[in-house]
Amino acid sequence: MPSIYLAGPEVFHPEAMALGRAKQALCRALGFEGLYPLDGEIPAGDLPPPELALAIYRANVGLIRQADLVIANLTPFRGPGADAGTVFEVGFALGLGKRVLGYRNVADSYLDRVRTWNIVPLTRDSAGHATDRDGLMVEDFGLGDNLMIDGSLIEGGIPVIEHAAEPGAALTDLTAFAHCLKRVQALLSSE
Amino acid sequence: MPSIYLAGPEVFHPEAMALGRAKQALCRALGFEGLYPLDGEIPAGDLPPPELALAIYRANVGLIRQADLVIANLTPFRGPGADAGTVFEVGFALGLGKRVLGYRNVADSYLDRVRTWNIVPLTRDSAGHATDRDGLMVEDFGLGDNLMIDGSLIEGGIPVIEHAAEPGAALTDLTAFAHCLKRVQALLSSE
Repeated sequence: MPSIYLAGPEVFHPEAMALGRAKQALCRALGFEGLYPLDGEIPAGDLPPPELALAIYRANVGLIRQADLVIANLTPFRGPGADAGTVFEVGFALGLGKRVLGYRNVADSYLDRVRTWNIVPLTRDSAGHATDRDGLMVEDFGLGDNLMIDGSLIEGGIPVIEHAAEPGAALTDLTAFAHCLKRVQALLSSE
Repeated sequence: MPSIYLAGPEVFHPEAMALGRAKQALCRALGFEGLYPLDGEIPAGDLPPPELALAIYRANVGLIRQADLVIANLTPFRGPGADAGTVFEVGFALGLGKRVLGYRNVADSYLDRVRTWNIVPLTRDSAGHATDRDGLMVEDFGLGDNLMIDGSLIEGGIPVIEHAAEPGAALTDLTAFAHCLKRVQALLSSE
């Protein structure tokens, strides 16, 4: 059974385990095994915080190595862009040569979100590029996040699947995740 | 000459080219070639924005594949954590089996920065974990960023090198970068 690593910031949600189980059930319904980060093997016992962090890192990396593919939840997290842990995992999996699909439960552009984050209006530098309140250039390619993220998925053939979730449901809505699973199914059946 | 990919959000700084040249000069002084993202080969002509983004993605990925090592500027960018493009590149390089060093021009913890970002005080869930204003758990391992980032560098043997830069100099201070170069030099001379 093909296995899919389920990357995403829902591991920080109060319903993290239930969300993982729901994703895994959707995987199973299509004949896939979902590997959820919180199911990684952590050594028993009370580890001091830095060692626990390293154990979780190793468990996640182990699950990614084990997985055939990755589906990443790239929904913005604590800022205008995707969760850093998830972005790391997308890069790592691509470096390993794995196929990665991604979804984002918002449909606006990165520029739109930086505009909100910036509070004061964005400005323009002498070359006409949008700049934020710190004078730093803001990417304006019409993409939903940093070009390394969205570019990598475009390069892989399946751009980030965007879905405007209801307010408050950005981390829990599984519509776009289910869409990704269908794409995986189509991919694997055509190979 | 060993080559080092120079990952970091200074590409968005108004002095991006000068910062790249300064990093490259520090590399050369120790016998390394610095590969700066803005030096990637982009096809000539006016590309539409999404195609330009993809061309930059490809150029950066090409430079990372070409590099022997990566030094990543993990200084927080538009939020409590590191720049997404840089984080992607760290993961990608590690997936390729490259050695990655990182630095951060702040010395506080991720939890400290989320506390500032959160505006209102953090709360605790029933298990005692810190939670942000959206009810999402905040990592509290005493690390400077998401555990996938800091864990990966601990695992590699050289934890993120932190340096508290002066206010306003977080993206331009090269003290910690120079420190990383010394570590690279020591590494390569011991191999």
